[in-house]
Amino acid sequence: MSEKPGSFAYDGLDRVLHEKARLGILTSLFSHPEGLVFGEIKSLCTLTDGNLSRHLQVLEREELVEIVKESGSGRPKTTVFITPLGRERFQEYLVELQTVLQAAKAAEKATGAQPGFSPA
Amino acid sequence: MSEKPGSFAYDGLDRVLHEKARLGILTSLFSHPEGLVFGEIKSLCTLTDGNLSRHLQVLEREELVEIVKESGSGRPKTTVFITPLGRERFQEYLVELQTVLQAAKAAEKATGAQPGFSPA
Repeated sequence: MSEKPGSFAYDGLDRVLHEKARLGILTSLFSHPEGLVFGEIKSLCTLTDGNLSRHLQVLEREELVEIVKESGSGRPKTTVFITPLGRERFQEYLVELQTVLQAAKAAEKATGAQPGFSPA
Repeated sequence: MSEKPGSFAYDGLDRVLHEKARLGILTSLFSHPEGLVFGEIKSLCTLTDGNLSRHLQVLEREELVEIVKESGSGRPKTTVFITPLGRERFQEYLVELQTVLQAAKAAEKATGAQPGFSPA
Protein backbone atom coordinates (compact mmCIF):
# COMPACT_ATOMS: atom_id res chain seq x y z
CA MET A 1 0.00 0.00 0.00
CA SER A 2 1.82 3.09 -1.22
CA GLU A 3 -0.95 5.70 -1.01
CA LYS A 4 -1.23 8.35 1.70
CA PRO A 5 -3.95 8.13 4.39
CA GLY A 6 -7.14 9.69 3.10
CA SER A 7 -6.26 9.07 -0.57
CA PHE A 8 -9.72 7.63 -1.17
CA ALA A 9 -11.70 9.79 1.25
CA TYR A 10 -13.01 12.04 -1.54
CA ASP A 11 -13.79 14.90 0.81
CA GLY A 12 -14.52 17.11 -2.18
CA LEU A 13 -17.49 14.96 -3.23
CA ASP A 14 -20.16 17.39 -2.05
CA ARG A 15 -22.89 15.40 -0.26
CA VAL A 16 -25.62 17.70 -1.56
CA LEU A 17 -24.59 17.19 -5.17
CA HIS A 18 -23.43 13.58 -4.95
CA GLU A 19 -26.98 12.31 -5.07
CA LYS A 20 -28.26 10.87 -8.32
CA ALA A 21 -31.47 12.90 -8.62
CA ARG A 22 -29.96 16.20 -7.50
CA LEU A 23 -27.02 15.67 -9.83
CA GLY A 24 -29.44 15.23 -12.72
CA ILE A 25 -31.46 18.29 -11.72
CA LEU A 26 -28.36 20.48 -11.45
CA THR A 27 -26.91 19.23 -14.73
CA SER A 28 -30.17 20.00 -16.52
CA LEU A 29 -30.30 23.49 -14.97
CA PHE A 30 -26.64 24.07 -15.70
CA SER A 31 -27.44 23.31 -19.35
CA HIS A 32 -30.32 25.79 -19.25
CA PRO A 33 -29.22 29.06 -17.67
CA GLU A 34 -32.50 30.54 -18.92
CA GLY A 35 -34.31 28.30 -16.43
CA LEU A 36 -36.57 25.29 -16.77
CA VAL A 37 -40.17 24.90 -15.72
CA PHE A 38 -41.07 22.28 -13.14
CA GLY A 39 -42.63 19.89 -15.67
CA GLU A 40 -39.57 20.02 -17.92
CA ILE A 41 -37.20 19.04 -15.10
CA LYS A 42 -39.60 16.27 -14.08
CA SER A 43 -39.47 14.85 -17.56
CA LEU A 44 -35.73 15.30 -18.11
CA CYS A 45 -34.87 13.65 -14.80
CA THR A 46 -37.73 11.10 -14.70
CA LEU A 47 -38.87 12.18 -11.23
CA THR A 48 -42.26 12.29 -9.56
CA ASP A 49 -43.74 15.60 -8.40
CA GLY A 50 -42.99 14.71 -4.79
CA ASN A 51 -39.40 13.66 -5.39
CA LEU A 52 -38.61 16.68 -7.52
CA SER A 53 -40.15 19.04 -4.93
CA ARG A 54 -38.17 17.45 -2.14
CA HIS A 55 -34.85 17.65 -3.98
CA LEU A 56 -35.53 21.23 -5.11
CA GLN A 57 -36.11 22.20 -1.48
CA VAL A 58 -32.70 20.81 -0.55
CA LEU A 59 -31.06 22.69 -3.41
CA GLU A 60 -32.92 25.91 -2.59
CA ARG A 61 -31.96 25.71 1.08
CA GLU A 62 -28.32 25.50 -0.03
CA GLU A 63 -28.93 28.47 -2.37
CA LEU A 64 -27.92 26.44 -5.40
CA VAL A 65 -31.21 27.07 -7.22
CA GLU A 66 -33.80 29.80 -7.28
CA ILE A 67 -37.47 28.90 -7.58
CA VAL A 68 -39.82 31.47 -9.11
CA LYS A 69 -43.58 30.95 -8.89
CA GLU A 70 -45.83 32.92 -11.22
CA SER A 71 -49.58 32.83 -10.79
CA GLY A 72 -51.15 34.87 -13.57
CA SER A 73 -54.51 34.34 -15.23
CA GLY A 74 -53.68 30.78 -16.33
CA ARG A 75 -52.14 27.85 -14.52
CA PRO A 76 -49.48 28.73 -11.95
CA LYS A 77 -46.00 28.24 -13.36
CA THR A 78 -42.88 27.30 -11.45
CA THR A 79 -39.55 28.10 -13.05
CA VAL A 80 -36.24 26.99 -11.60
CA PHE A 81 -32.86 28.60 -12.19
CA ILE A 82 -29.37 27.59 -11.16
CA THR A 83 -27.70 30.32 -9.08
CA PRO A 84 -24.11 31.55 -9.56
CA LEU A 85 -23.25 29.65 -6.35
CA GLY A 86 -24.92 26.57 -7.83
CA ARG A 87 -22.78 26.82 -10.97
CA GLU A 88 -19.68 27.19 -8.83
CA ARG A 89 -20.44 24.24 -6.56
CA PHE A 90 -21.42 22.12 -9.57
CA GLN A 91 -18.14 22.85 -11.31
CA GLU A 92 -16.15 22.10 -8.15
CA TYR A 93 -17.98 18.81 -7.89
CA LEU A 94 -17.06 17.96 -11.46
CA VAL A 95 -13.40 18.54 -10.71
CA GLU A 96 -13.67 15.99 -7.91
CA LEU A 97 -15.46 13.50 -10.14
CA GLN A 98 -12.63 13.83 -12.57
CA THR A 99 -10.19 12.96 -9.79
CA VAL A 100 -12.17 9.80 -9.11
CA LEU A 101 -12.04 8.85 -12.78
CA GLN A 102 -8.32 9.53 -13.00
CA ALA A 103 -7.58 7.46 -9.89
CA ALA A 104 -9.53 4.58 -11.38
CA LYS A 105 -7.78 4.96 -14.72
CA ALA A 106 -4.40 4.85 -12.97
CA ALA A 107 -5.53 1.76 -11.06
CA GLU A 108 -6.57 0.04 -14.28
CA LYS A 109 -3.17 0.69 -15.78
CA ALA A 110 -1.30 -0.41 -12.66
CA THR A 111 -3.25 -3.64 -12.25
CA GLY A 112 -3.38 -4.45 -15.94
CA ALA A 113 -7.17 -4.66 -15.83
CA GLN A 114 -9.21 -5.31 -18.93
CA PRO A 115 -10.04 -1.87 -20.29
CA GLY A 116 -13.68 -1.55 -19.42
CA PHE A 117 -13.89 2.14 -20.09
CA SER A 118 -11.66 4.65 -21.81
CA PRO A 119 -11.79 8.24 -20.56
CA ALA A 120 -11.63 10.70 -23.42
CA MET B 1 -35.52 22.45 -24.20
CA SER B 2 -34.14 20.16 -26.87
CA GLU B 3 -33.23 17.07 -24.82
CA LYS B 4 -35.23 13.86 -24.71
CA PRO B 5 -37.21 12.88 -21.60
CA GLY B 6 -34.97 11.09 -19.14
CA SER B 7 -31.79 12.70 -20.48
CA PHE B 8 -30.70 13.53 -16.95
CA ALA B 9 -32.16 10.53 -15.13
CA TYR B 10 -28.76 8.79 -14.93
CA ASP B 11 -30.30 5.37 -14.45
CA GLY B 12 -26.85 3.84 -14.82
CA LEU B 13 -25.58 5.55 -11.67
CA ASP B 14 -25.59 2.44 -9.50
CA ARG B 15 -27.06 3.37 -6.08
CA VAL B 16 -24.75 0.97 -4.26
CA LEU B 17 -21.65 2.52 -5.78
CA HIS B 18 -22.84 6.12 -5.99
CA GLU B 19 -22.14 6.69 -2.31
CA LYS B 20 -19.03 8.58 -1.35
CA ALA B 21 -17.62 6.11 1.20
CA ARG B 22 -18.40 2.99 -0.84
CA LEU B 23 -16.92 4.61 -3.93
CA GLY B 24 -13.70 5.27 -2.03
CA ILE B 25 -13.62 1.72 -0.65
CA LEU B 26 -14.14 0.16 -4.07
CA THR B 27 -11.58 2.41 -5.75
CA SER B 28 -8.99 1.48 -3.15
CA LEU B 29 -9.76 -2.24 -3.57
CA PHE B 30 -9.78 -1.92 -7.34
CA SER B 31 -6.27 -0.46 -7.04
CA HIS B 32 -5.21 -3.40 -4.85
CA PRO B 33 -6.33 -6.68 -6.40
CA GLU B 34 -4.09 -8.42 -3.84
CA GLY B 35 -6.52 -7.22 -1.13
CA LEU B 36 -6.27 -4.70 1.69
CA VAL B 37 -6.53 -5.27 5.41
CA PHE B 38 -9.31 -3.56 7.34
CA GLY B 39 -7.00 -0.97 8.94
CA GLU B 40 -5.53 0.01 5.59
CA ILE B 41 -8.95 0.71 4.07
CA LYS B 42 -9.93 2.66 7.19
CA SER B 43 -6.90 4.87 6.78
CA LEU B 44 -7.13 5.29 3.00
CA CYS B 45 -10.81 6.22 3.17
CA THR B 46 -10.75 8.07 6.52
CA LEU B 47 -13.60 6.00 7.96
CA THR B 48 -14.41 4.86 11.48
CA ASP B 49 -14.53 1.13 12.31
CA GLY B 50 -18.31 1.27 12.44
CA ASN B 51 -18.75 3.08 9.16
CA LEU B 52 -16.33 0.87 7.31
CA SER B 53 -17.99 -2.28 8.69
CA ARG B 54 -21.41 -1.06 7.66
CA HIS B 55 -20.36 -0.18 4.11
CA LEU B 56 -18.42 -3.44 3.71
CA GLN B 57 -21.57 -5.34 4.69
CA VAL B 58 -23.50 -3.59 1.93
CA LEU B 59 -20.77 -4.37 -0.60
CA GLU B 60 -20.51 -8.00 0.56
CA ARG B 61 -24.27 -8.50 0.34
CA GLU B 62 -24.07 -7.33 -3.28
CA GLU B 63 -21.14 -9.73 -3.81
CA LEU B 64 -18.86 -6.88 -4.84
CA VAL B 65 -16.27 -7.66 -2.17
CA GLU B 66 -15.07 -10.75 -0.34
CA ILE B 67 -14.14 -10.51 3.33
CA VAL B 68 -11.65 -13.04 4.69
CA LYS B 69 -11.11 -13.30 8.45
CA GLU B 70 -8.00 -15.06 9.72
CA SER B 71 -7.57 -15.81 13.39
CA GLY B 72 -4.19 -17.39 13.93
CA SER B 73 -1.95 -17.08 16.93
CA GLY B 74 -1.77 -13.28 16.80
CA ARG B 75 -4.45 -10.65 16.36
CA PRO B 76 -7.32 -11.60 14.06
CA LYS B 77 -6.82 -10.11 10.60
CA THR B 78 -9.53 -9.09 8.18
CA THR B 79 -8.59 -8.83 4.52
CA VAL B 80 -10.95 -7.50 1.88
CA PHE B 81 -10.83 -8.24 -1.84
CA ILE B 82 -12.80 -6.86 -4.75
CA THR B 83 -14.63 -9.64 -6.63
CA PRO B 84 -14.75 -9.99 -10.43
CA LEU B 85 -18.37 -8.78 -10.23
CA GLY B 86 -17.16 -5.82 -8.17
CA ARG B 87 -14.61 -4.90 -10.82
CA GLU B 88 -17.30 -5.16 -13.49
CA ARG B 89 -19.88 -3.04 -11.65
CA PHE B 90 -17.20 -0.50 -10.75
CA GLN B 91 -16.13 -0.14 -14.37
CA GLU B 92 -19.74 0.18 -15.53
CA TYR B 93 -20.23 2.90 -12.94
CA LEU B 94 -17.19 4.76 -14.26
CA VAL B 95 -18.63 4.72 -17.76
CA GLU B 96 -21.75 6.42 -16.40
CA LEU B 97 -19.69 8.99 -14.47
CA GLN B 98 -17.95 9.79 -17.70
CA THR B 99 -21.33 10.42 -19.32
CA VAL B 100 -22.16 12.88 -16.54
CA LEU B 101 -18.87 14.70 -17.08
CA GLN B 102 -19.36 14.82 -20.83
CA ALA B 103 -22.89 16.18 -20.51
CA ALA B 104 -21.59 18.91 -18.20
CA LYS B 105 -18.73 19.67 -20.55
CA ALA B 106 -21.17 20.03 -23.44
CA ALA B 107 -23.34 22.30 -21.30
CA GLU B 108 -20.38 24.50 -20.45
CA LYS B 109 -19.59 24.92 -24.12
CA ALA B 110 -23.19 25.57 -25.09
CA THR B 111 -23.80 28.16 -22.39
CA GLY B 112 -20.40 29.81 -22.71
CA ALA B 113 -19.69 29.22 -19.05
CA GLN B 114 -16.34 30.13 -17.55
CA PRO B 115 -14.20 27.04 -17.81
CA GLY B 116 -14.15 25.80 -14.23
CA PHE B 117 -12.77 22.41 -15.08
CA SER B 118 -11.12 20.86 -18.09
CA PRO B 119 -11.50 17.12 -18.56
CA ALA B 120 -8.25 15.58 -19.79
